[in-house]
Amino acid sequence: MKQLEDMIVEKGIIRAGDILKVDMFLNHQIDVNLLKAMGEEWKRLYEGTEINKILTIEASGIGIACLAALAFNVPVVFAKKTQSANLDGETYQSRVFSYTHNREYIIRVGKKYLSSEDKVLILDDFLANGKALLGLIDICEQAGAKVQGCGVAIEKAYQDGGRIVREKGIRLESLAKILSMSEDGIVFEH
Amino acid sequence: MKQLEDMIVEKGIIRAGDILKVDMFLNHQIDVNLLKAMGEEWKRLYEGTEINKILTIEASGIGIACLAALAFNVPVVFAKKTQSANLDGETYQSRVFSYTHNREYIIRVGKKYLSSEDKVLILDDFLANGKALLGLIDICEQAGAKVQGCGVAIEKAYQDGGRIVREKGIRLESLAKILSMSEDGIVFEH
Repeated sequence: MKQLEDMIVEKGIIRAGDILKVDMFLNHQIDVNLLKAMGEEWKRLYEGTEINKILTIEASGIGIACLAALAFNVPVVFAKKTQSANLDGETYQSRVFSYTHNREYIIRVGKKYLSSEDKVLILDDFLANGKALLGLIDICEQAGAKVQGCGVAIEKAYQDGGRIVREKGIRLESLAKILSMSEDGIVFEH
Repeated sequence: MKQLEDMIVEKGIIRAGDILKVDMFLNHQIDVNLLKAMGEEWKRLYEGTEINKILTIEASGIGIACLAALAFNVPVVFAKKTQSANLDGETYQSRVFSYTHNREYIIRVGKKYLSSEDKVLILDDFLANGKALLGLIDICEQAGAKVQGCGVAIEKAYQDGGRIVREKGIRLESLAKILSMSEDGIVFEH
């Protein structure tokens, strides 16, 4: 998606340790018009696929999922990373290792918000090693919900996550697919 | 806002310990059409007030802020509760006690995302004791940003938060203001 790639080139910052900072528009400050356009792009890509729910994970996924959900006209459910008083009752749980925070989380979704009736699109901001997406897919499998596909804003295509998700037979639509990045710039796959 | 009040009555659950669970539509599963209407209502209420940024706090505030930001056509910045690799550089910080999680957080906003140029609307899901809003107001004051007003989806008007914020001379627009709640039902202020 050219609009997203242009934004990454213009406002993203590459740091040592394979870090791409996009906090200017995606995961600290949020450009809602960009996210709305991203949602409309996923809607176009998934035209003809039945989707009745969007599943994501707090915190950076929520804005992306909410603006995409407007285009799909479906509710969002976001998996929680903390045990909260808001989340009582039975939950589906999965373990996810976060390289960003260098720790393991248990992610949780209330059982009443995901069932075998659901046809789910899973959305997130980044895909690198795939741990977050795989945790969300695991939760859908526990619930008997059908994963109709995944979408991420930015895929680091030189890491394993995308391959692992696609080898499970799950459709994955990445709006910006990075083949390589360095001080010299970013190469996208087209 | 009648649409929100109706949703609270229809789908909210009152639990012992003064807990109102709205995870069916506001802070676990999210009804994006309701949030869009809430954003348009704040836009109507703040008509004529200059606002160039919406500030909120992860996680439940993000969806509300993003859908309101569409109506205002401004970016969102969300304060982070965890020290993350995504948030390097200098930050404004404030201490917030969360009764929901029964612990104190340090909330952080990157200094480059808030400045004396900013005219800010602060949004959140709940207002009870006001700790989260006061933390966000504190961060705006540190940045020299002007707080043009606050908005919350649900104010528990029998707790202190609303009074404290308003006594600071800050405008506060609560879309559903609860005077009392019990097993017998919820009384809203109109």
